[in-house]
Amino acid sequence: MRVTTGWQSTDHSTAMRRVPIERRDLRGDDIAVRVDYCGVCHSDLHRIRGVFRDEGDLVPGHEFTGTVTAAGPAVTGFAPGDRVAVGTIVDSCGVCAMCQAGQENFCYEGATSTYGGTDRVDGTKTKGGYSREYVLREKFAYRLPAGLDPAAAAPLMCAGITVWEPMRAAGTGPGSRVAVAGLGGLGHLAVKFAAALGAEVTVLSRTPDKAADARKLGAADLLLSTDGQQMEQARGQFDLILDTISAPHDIPPLLRVAGLDGTLCLLGYPAPIPLPVMDLIYGRKKLTASGTGGSKGTAEMLAFSAEHGITADIELLPSTRVEEALTRLDQGDVRYRFVLDLSDLD
Amino acid sequence: MRVTTGWQSTDHSTAMRRVPIERRDLRGDDIAVRVDYCGVCHSDLHRIRGVFRDEGDLVPGHEFTGTVTAAGPAVTGFAPGDRVAVGTIVDSCGVCAMCQAGQENFCYEGATSTYGGTDRVDGTKTKGGYSREYVLREKFAYRLPAGLDPAAAAPLMCAGITVWEPMRAAGTGPGSRVAVAGLGGLGHLAVKFAAALGAEVTVLSRTPDKAADARKLGAADLLLSTDGQQMEQARGQFDLILDTISAPHDIPPLLRVAGLDGTLCLLGYPAPIPLPVMDLIYGRKKLTASGTGGSKGTAEMLAFSAEHGITADIELLPSTRVEEALTRLDQGDVRYRFVLDLSDLD
Repeated sequence: MRVTTGWQSTDHSTAMRRVPIERRDLRGDDIAVRVDYCGVCHSDLHRIRGVFRDEGDLVPGHEFTGTVTAAGPAVTGFAPGDRVAVGTIVDSCGVCAMCQAGQENFCYEGATSTYGGTDRVDGTKTKGGYSREYVLREKFAYRLPAGLDPAAAAPLMCAGITVWEPMRAAGTGPGSRVAVAGLGGLGHLAVKFAAALGAEVTVLSRTPDKAADARKLGAADLLLSTDGQQMEQARGQFDLILDTISAPHDIPPLLRVAGLDGTLCLLGYPAPIPLPVMDLIYGRKKLTASGTGGSKGTAEMLAFSAEHGITADIELLPSTRVEEALTRLDQGDVRYRFVLDLSDLD
Repeated sequence: MRVTTGWQSTDHSTAMRRVPIERRDLRGDDIAVRVDYCGVCHSDLHRIRGVFRDEGDLVPGHEFTGTVTAAGPAVTGFAPGDRVAVGTIVDSCGVCAMCQAGQENFCYEGATSTYGGTDRVDGTKTKGGYSREYVLREKFAYRLPAGLDPAAAAPLMCAGITVWEPMRAAGTGPGSRVAVAGLGGLGHLAVKFAAALGAEVTVLSRTPDKAADARKLGAADLLLSTDGQQMEQARGQFDLILDTISAPHDIPPLLRVAGLDGTLCLLGYPAPIPLPVMDLIYGRKKLTASGTGGSKGTAEMLAFSAEHGITADIELLPSTRVEEALTRLDQGDVRYRFVLDLSDLD
């Protein structure tokens, strides 16, 4: 057994406690990773609070970068000293149709979440990247491309892949009209990716104060979603709308700005919603949803990010300030992702 | 003013009353059509009963074929004696993006329904094809292809186009795996079209008694949707699922048999449903819905039907038996579409 240190929630509170954490001894295909940087995802907040289901106390963190410190005897892809990136899942069955397609996140047996999941071998509950060390199968670690800042690259592993895969599935490219609703951790990366893919990007926001940022990130325009006239003018204008809003909200106004055969992809708030079927019928709109990604998309997204120099716009905090990060994230006070520096846990 | 005869509902009852019906004098681009055959659609039942909203008394009927008897002075496409087919809409604004795209059914100003709609010129309530004569703009009439039986072709104009458009939008063709849930008026035409497009077609049904019919219509197989084991084996197997079930039902089991990036298209029951977002996320499924079609798709569907000899399997009844048709339709006792012969109204 290995012992490290991490930040754990208690009783659904964001007052995180510094605790010792046990990590398993390396299995044959395991690597040990010194966690250098871990992003703070809005779903960390949802899950700490048990918004969708009670998961008990958690060590959150599912988008991190670090350095390999040890490798099991069967490891072939990594050696100590290698820079790696790890995302939201750390194991899957490997044989079902989804795993075979490189979409382990949709594994028919259920992928193992990086935290709050159940290890497939020993049944223990997984603990995440708000910690100084992580042990996982090498298959679920990705080589961090040279040239990407390790701190700013950490959010690519959840926020990034979550917006990347639906864009690729929708065939986003030159000529595509993409709207991004909500300009937060997911949204700002969606704008960067969509613009780099050649799409014309519009941000939909409740407030105009992010207009300059939106343009700097690559958007052509910002529409005020609270302005009925602007939204009416935008009716039917978009091929793909990436809805990254992380709170309950109305779906029909977003469907309305989708064009014929356009797609609204829900990314930010995975709770059941009342679906107005008539709003889908008119314009034959498609509603979809996405969550994180698989090995195929993640590798592709990292290569694309390296090629286009894309990382997150982050605010880097020492991990001792994790509660501040969660509190300010809850208030929407971050541009655009908090990343924890775990070196203060040594 | 012209006067004809039709069948009208009263107080949400399917006990239809034979009533005189006024039709407008022909405007410049109007044609008068002697209605020969009119299909009985499940939505006629829903609308008579006010299931989704109270529309008052109705003369239903929005899939009919007939013969042109008169043409206004500006009509260019039809002459008396021409065989025509009419579907669910009879007017639209003509200038919005949807009308320009040949999807007048999605007109931003609202298309005029063939019955229960509001005429754009004089504001009167439209009355449908359960009548001996109809007057409409020539633009919304289609030449009935030679070789298609006029009675069996009538259901193409609602049931047919409703299943045709989502298949075309999804790119159904050779290699596509299509499931059709519900083998009724819509479903049996969906099987015929999908098979003729080259897809491998499976019928999902609650009972096995339609297996022979399913195969005869062109399906490779019938799966029992009530059999958990069969449904589990079918997990992730379909690119497109056309859900033609006309009563409230669960969506997640149908999403489950869709493959990665697969589409579930709701066609039969346009009420709001609770949408389980997590069921969309896993496998990045798409949910869409469709209702009838526009001029572009309708013309294409009729040409395809003529080329492949596709019409509905019908039970033809004199229109005096309209109540029997509605009652038996409500009980699911029809293979697969009732069509009324309106000649008994002369």
